[in-house]
Amino acid sequence: MADKPPRRPRAETPKGFRDYFGAEVTERKAMLDRIAGVYHRYGFDPLETSAVETVEALGKFLPDVDRPNEGVFAWQDEDADWLALRYDLTAPLARVAAQYRNDLPSPYRRYAMGPVWRNEKPGPGRFRQFYQCDADTVGSPSVAADAEICAMLADCLEEVGIPRGDYLVKVNNRKVLNGVMEIAGLAGDDKEAERGIVLRAIDKIDRLGAEGVRALLRGGRKDESGDFTKGAGLASEQAEVVMGFTTAKRHTGAATVARLRELVGTSVIGAEGVAELEAIAALLEAQGYGPDRIVLDPGVVRGLGYYTGPVYEAELTFEILDEKGRKRQFGSVAGGGRYDGLVKRFTGQDVPATGVSIGVDRLLAALRAKGRSAGDTAGPVVVTVMDRDRMADYMAMVGELRQAGIRAEVYLGNPKNFGNQLKYADKRASPVAVIQGGNEAAAGTVILKDLILGAKIAESATLEEWKDRPAQVEVPRADLAAAVRKMLGA
Amino acid sequence: MADKPPRRPRAETPKGFRDYFGAEVTERKAMLDRIAGVYHRYGFDPLETSAVETVEALGKFLPDVDRPNEGVFAWQDEDADWLALRYDLTAPLARVAAQYRNDLPSPYRRYAMGPVWRNEKPGPGRFRQFYQCDADTVGSPSVAADAEICAMLADCLEEVGIPRGDYLVKVNNRKVLNGVMEIAGLAGDDKEAERGIVLRAIDKIDRLGAEGVRALLRGGRKDESGDFTKGAGLASEQAEVVMGFTTAKRHTGAATVARLRELVGTSVIGAEGVAELEAIAALLEAQGYGPDRIVLDPGVVRGLGYYTGPVYEAELTFEILDEKGRKRQFGSVAGGGRYDGLVKRFTGQDVPATGVSIGVDRLLAALRAKGRSAGDTAGPVVVTVMDRDRMADYMAMVGELRQAGIRAEVYLGNPKNFGNQLKYADKRASPVAVIQGGNEAAAGTVILKDLILGAKIAESATLEEWKDRPAQVEVPRADLAAAVRKMLGA
Repeated sequence: MADKPPRRPRAETPKGFRDYFGAEVTERKAMLDRIAGVYHRYGFDPLETSAVETVEALGKFLPDVDRPNEGVFAWQDEDADWLALRYDLTAPLARVAAQYRNDLPSPYRRYAMGPVWRNEKPGPGRFRQFYQCDADTVGSPSVAADAEICAMLADCLEEVGIPRGDYLVKVNNRKVLNGVMEIAGLAGDDKEAERGIVLRAIDKIDRLGAEGVRALLRGGRKDESGDFTKGAGLASEQAEVVMGFTTAKRHTGAATVARLRELVGTSVIGAEGVAELEAIAALLEAQGYGPDRIVLDPGVVRGLGYYTGPVYEAELTFEILDEKGRKRQFGSVAGGGRYDGLVKRFTGQDVPATGVSIGVDRLLAALRAKGRSAGDTAGPVVVTVMDRDRMADYMAMVGELRQAGIRAEVYLGNPKNFGNQLKYADKRASPVAVIQGGNEAAAGTVILKDLILGAKIAESATLEEWKDRPAQVEVPRADLAAAVRKMLGA
Repeated sequence: MADKPPRRPRAETPKGFRDYFGAEVTERKAMLDRIAGVYHRYGFDPLETSAVETVEALGKFLPDVDRPNEGVFAWQDEDADWLALRYDLTAPLARVAAQYRNDLPSPYRRYAMGPVWRNEKPGPGRFRQFYQCDADTVGSPSVAADAEICAMLADCLEEVGIPRGDYLVKVNNRKVLNGVMEIAGLAGDDKEAERGIVLRAIDKIDRLGAEGVRALLRGGRKDESGDFTKGAGLASEQAEVVMGFTTAKRHTGAATVARLRELVGTSVIGAEGVAELEAIAALLEAQGYGPDRIVLDPGVVRGLGYYTGPVYEAELTFEILDEKGRKRQFGSVAGGGRYDGLVKRFTGQDVPATGVSIGVDRLLAALRAKGRSAGDTAGPVVVTVMDRDRMADYMAMVGELRQAGIRAEVYLGNPKNFGNQLKYADKRASPVAVIQGGNEAAAGTVILKDLILGAKIAESATLEEWKDRPAQVEVPRADLAAAVRKMLGA
């Protein structure tokens, strides 16, 4: 009725979001299943919270976000409550631990996996929806809980295909850093902003280098684009105390502990942190997790403000080529730590908690970069349609194949052009095409075309080597499933 | 610094959302895995789109929604684009099929599973986030594609544990209904609203009964609360044509087809629909899907306006007790149909498509109602802490158990009160507690407590029958894993 047709909607993913096809989905699922298996074996129970939380419950704990409430996707519902998509799996856990505190076992040990959403500027390989896979122990103040999670993290990485030697779990303790800050004159409630600047600066040491971090500890730093970032305002001597901390790693855990003990000097909180690190190292060693898997490393601080004790991070240590073809270390794929204050937000009571988050999408990218991903990419056997009036016959064939456990389908597009049917089979990575025209039907046979062998023959310079392996066979109709299975080599 | 402490956030799920714990998560995952296995065997490939779509791409296809744009969770991003959470998995598929039309195989056969969100009034058992599990064939006009999906739906239900006889897949065709409407005088663009009223009325026949539907076909209907719903305004004779359609089901498919052929009379579209139903029935019969699994049933219309041809629905036929203790049929757990217009919205070109959506959460509820759910509920073996200075020893024990493939954990709460440790093991449904105090450590032994047997003894009136099965044994420390495995009966 209108004068011109309405504009058609654009078929586009929203900016910063993407779709995952075929093996991309099965690869991730296989990885999540493997990690869940490890978490389960360690005694963690699954929890699935909804994607939507009240903004009030989520709080403002996004890392590196100077402007709170930015960084999440939020909207106001019809009752004027603000709702938002979860930005991690820890905030919902804190809400659950508070909401069900009278019913849950204590300690409450749960794992969770699923997408989280960040309303941040998308970039190459940086999406606004990505998967996390977490395990946390809520209600245990024991460093044994932290040590266990570090061991479990190492187990998870090996389980998904990162061999020992290709990763390192690095452990540190925020209390040690707090002790160092105390010594550097950054104790006290009025210095919170400065401590935040110091934390974030140390966290960026790989990218900024020692000089960049030093600048941020002192007056500030101008980056290559000319933008100025305000520093923590430390005097030179104070800044060197903090810098000493970033380089405190020694060849053995014991030597690192000794060096840290020097650095924290008379700080009570610092000494407590060093003792905790020592205890974690001892527990891990007793279980056989040596420095080839887990090391103490004061360089690890984790940007998040809410950590209160041990922090840990898993790094992949092999080199990959970046988008510009330069070699670089793959870097961090998982991290976590102790956060004793998150549940207290709700209840007012101290609830010690510690946990890890594995960045599944990054880990998948790492495996792909090493050529080690293992998604299921075998397409279905395609039963072609030579005679559209005999669709029931072709459907009966796929029915038999499926009964025999073979992935199979009838070609459901327009059957007129047979070439299109073979092109379709090729696009689906189909291993076998089944063909039955009128002659075969009359003879009670079917033709099986080995498409994998066919593709190899097409690539090969000489046909000689293939001549004993026919890429096409005619078999009795009654032998269909058995003959296909034989061709599949199963 | 403030005069009074800030108000604490409420630890609450947003209204209409819920959390899933332990077996609730593993049960659903097991069901999704089984359904995915069937979809895979049928040749469908996985697709995972993001939870977020542009409102423009989603369109306004929510069922039964008189107010478009209500019914979804939507917000405006910083570029003023409106984004929303997907309300089903079909709208994102239509977007994908249009966006990647030059790269995807044709037909494109995909399955998808995941949560969808509806901004609707929550009710008992009705949540604003729930799972769907879909399979669709895009790009095939053949009714073989529809028939296949009906067969696959039957296979899925049996695969997840609904035995033959406890479900029925009912098939109908919108074209038949359109033919009936034509005969009843409801053809033409100006009658779209009336046709919508007729569709929704028939869809509610189970709830409203024949008289209620008849009222909606004519002037309108006043419900028990006194609310009036406007009717389609049909004259008595026209209404009876439509009513005849709702009762057209006969004992055999052939008889139903014959009756429908009478009803659609001279309508071309109606005759086309009847022929399609006949073809679907023939294809299914050739594959052995008889009326014990799949039947033609003109009572099925599916509320969604976008269906254009065959529609299908899976109903569970067993009775359950509702919340008021009354017997009732469980009803629909899955449905779908042919929707040839959804991709055309984007591209302007006809893209025939058909698919099914399984309501996983309803299906789980059905299995639970029948006592047939099969979630993994075995808790971990709990290694208790008798001596907190020997944490490393206890960690070594769980390490050995896990190495042996046994789910195990150290008690990580405050170990002071041993009773609390056993209460914890009980709450976790732990099968075995491992105990090693100073005496056992000195003797090189551990004590294993069979908590399942212990619980049975506590329930039993007489201890006699248990006396030969000790609920507690002391074994050499070196035999820990083997002895636990024996106690687990594995």
